[in-house]
Amino acid sequence: MREPFTYPNSREQFERASRVIPSGIYGHQGPAEGCHIPFDAFPLFSSRASGSYFWDIDGHRYIDYMCAYGPNVLGYNDPDVDEAARKQREKGDCITSPSLVMVDFAELLTDTVASADWAFFAKNGNDVTTLAVMTARAHTRRKKIVFFKGYYHGVSPWTQKIDCAGVIEEDVMNNLYVKWNDTAAVERVFAENRGEIAAVIAQPYMHGNFADNELPAEGFWKKVRKLCSENETVLIVDDVRAGFRLDLAGSDHYFGFEADLICFCKALANGYNVSALCGKEFLKNTVSSISYTGSYWLSAVPFAAGIACIEKMKRLNVPALLAERGSRLKRELLKAAADYGFNLKISGAPALFYMRLADDPSLMLHQEWIAECVKRGVYFTNHHNHFINASLTDGDIDETADIARDAFEVIRQRHPE
Amino acid sequence: MREPFTYPNSREQFERASRVIPSGIYGHQGPAEGCHIPFDAFPLFSSRASGSYFWDIDGHRYIDYMCAYGPNVLGYNDPDVDEAARKQREKGDCITSPSLVMVDFAELLTDTVASADWAFFAKNGNDVTTLAVMTARAHTRRKKIVFFKGYYHGVSPWTQKIDCAGVIEEDVMNNLYVKWNDTAAVERVFAENRGEIAAVIAQPYMHGNFADNELPAEGFWKKVRKLCSENETVLIVDDVRAGFRLDLAGSDHYFGFEADLICFCKALANGYNVSALCGKEFLKNTVSSISYTGSYWLSAVPFAAGIACIEKMKRLNVPALLAERGSRLKRELLKAAADYGFNLKISGAPALFYMRLADDPSLMLHQEWIAECVKRGVYFTNHHNHFINASLTDGDIDETADIARDAFEVIRQRHPE
Repeated sequence: MREPFTYPNSREQFERASRVIPSGIYGHQGPAEGCHIPFDAFPLFSSRASGSYFWDIDGHRYIDYMCAYGPNVLGYNDPDVDEAARKQREKGDCITSPSLVMVDFAELLTDTVASADWAFFAKNGNDVTTLAVMTARAHTRRKKIVFFKGYYHGVSPWTQKIDCAGVIEEDVMNNLYVKWNDTAAVERVFAENRGEIAAVIAQPYMHGNFADNELPAEGFWKKVRKLCSENETVLIVDDVRAGFRLDLAGSDHYFGFEADLICFCKALANGYNVSALCGKEFLKNTVSSISYTGSYWLSAVPFAAGIACIEKMKRLNVPALLAERGSRLKRELLKAAADYGFNLKISGAPALFYMRLADDPSLMLHQEWIAECVKRGVYFTNHHNHFINASLTDGDIDETADIARDAFEVIRQRHPE
Repeated sequence: MREPFTYPNSREQFERASRVIPSGIYGHQGPAEGCHIPFDAFPLFSSRASGSYFWDIDGHRYIDYMCAYGPNVLGYNDPDVDEAARKQREKGDCITSPSLVMVDFAELLTDTVASADWAFFAKNGNDVTTLAVMTARAHTRRKKIVFFKGYYHGVSPWTQKIDCAGVIEEDVMNNLYVKWNDTAAVERVFAENRGEIAAVIAQPYMHGNFADNELPAEGFWKKVRKLCSENETVLIVDDVRAGFRLDLAGSDHYFGFEADLICFCKALANGYNVSALCGKEFLKNTVSSISYTGSYWLSAVPFAAGIACIEKMKRLNVPALLAERGSRLKRELLKAAADYGFNLKISGAPALFYMRLADDPSLMLHQEWIAECVKRGVYFTNHHNHFINASLTDGDIDETADIARDAFEVIRQRHPE
């Protein structure tokens, strides 16, 4: 049985961070979001990363199943991607005129992604989901946007909820919400808003937080695609999280349909800072008509990294590899849970698996188990899907299963059957 | 007299780009915006950059007065910044938990910027202007935002105009517009919207396009600051463009007042991809309450680059250096114009000078002169302020003046007195 880690350096540095940064650490990585594993159970600062591991500032190593919340797809500090980036940096990065590597990257994406006739580059997933909605509104001259409950499309006011801090009613008054996989509800929202819906925006499957992830029901996407086409509504797929982990041709292609607009970010360049909106020819001129740019959007280094990343993902057939790794891990974890009498549910695509201990619907027992895993070197989280990266080895998976068993043992002792 | 450049490679590659990228090249750097120097006069793709120069793909070198529209403040590929970035990259960049270098950078900013009690990092200037407005709305529980006509605060729908593609009336219905430097108009807008104004957002001086740039009138900022305080309205300074080029303590400090929130981006890390919102203690908890994050926002490399950049800007006293370089260039250009009988107006801060040939109010003569400069190796633009970087030498300025004279001679021959 492994001893649990302690984090004196992380705690001390977090106090320092809290003095000069709101929340100390913000976003997913911070403790302030209120939906994480208990503050005491997890490290707060990393000192370095390599492959499928990172090390915290107290000297502990983690097998990392969050992958920087997605960008790490080939392994941290991938030598091929880093070498391509280094070579481009010697020439230049953020220059008054763009580099040809931007065009090379756009050509590679349009060759790779089934629904991409063109590519537009930015920096955040949020930049391209926002551009997608603006494009749909400009093209249709309509205002309303259909969302699926449980969605996440970034942090811009238009995509937040009315009760979120900083959001006003005007930001969200044209938003319509329907239930995922509910074909009748989608038909109803079109019938009730005839000629008014600019876009449907959706993740390729429902990978929401605090809930089992749901793949599309049989025929669901076919029906949504048909309704969008019949109503001249733009179908936007937000592939920021799942993109390239299911299918290099896009997650829409994986599920057997084509989006009008598709948003990529996380797995695009193995951590180098770039996002992309891709789409169909009929929307290209509309995108051109929108005033949309940013200070670093034409920087060359992330484009060079993106080319190296996509080429390597093709060579390794990364989606198949991640599915195999994820499925193997799933089998090992289910076996470990069963051996200790726990009912572990693993949902979503294996490459982005979501976990929940179904023995306790409050999710508190699940949170306890996650905490005991993290404190022994397996970085899981308790509310969000996980990410597999291509450098994860059989040895890593075996070690993960061992640590998961230790953690099950601890919580079984604490909560006897 | 220098022969004008031609751009066969740029033209050919632009055709290629146009097939796979909306507009071919978007934003400032692209020809589609309709407000640039004539398409035929300027290069479209760079091959490399160094110091104050970049080279295009037809082999021409430019003395670059656009500096990637701001990020290049020390000189392209600055060895100190690049070395700090390289060292951090070896440890890691975009990792599940942030690096301590984030805290170091926040401490350096709060030590450097007069109105900064804390710092929040993102990627685009637009990310932080949006967060500033959300913070003001959350803090005041009011909706209205006062803008100064001629402003630019990014590309989010809330900051665009009602007639822009992709924008709906709900995006901008709480926006109020007043004239820059018009104290009475600011008083009036507060009187007419008593208790309803969440924020005033403004650049530190009016550095708009197609118009002489205007420094703040005597007493203007003092009055605006007083009205904001009296009305419990949040004063947001958008220092994305001018930040660190006028004063390392912030452009508000330069003009003798303190903002409640101040937005930085371009000169923050010499081209490495980071932006920052800084602000006063009383708004820190409000920022914490807002759901706001992005995939690469905690990446360590740009923080390391930012620290190296700010430390070097301090060592070199970059604002004084840029003012001296900009003033010297201004004198040389005014002399050259006068020698050929042209009335050149140079406005704004010397470090971010704006130019206009006042002989022709249509600005077409100015556009012709800019075109002839660009085609001989001086990269100016005809509608936007320029940027000085710290690696610009006396020799560069002399060469610029020589080329400007060639360009004046060409247009004097074309338009005799």
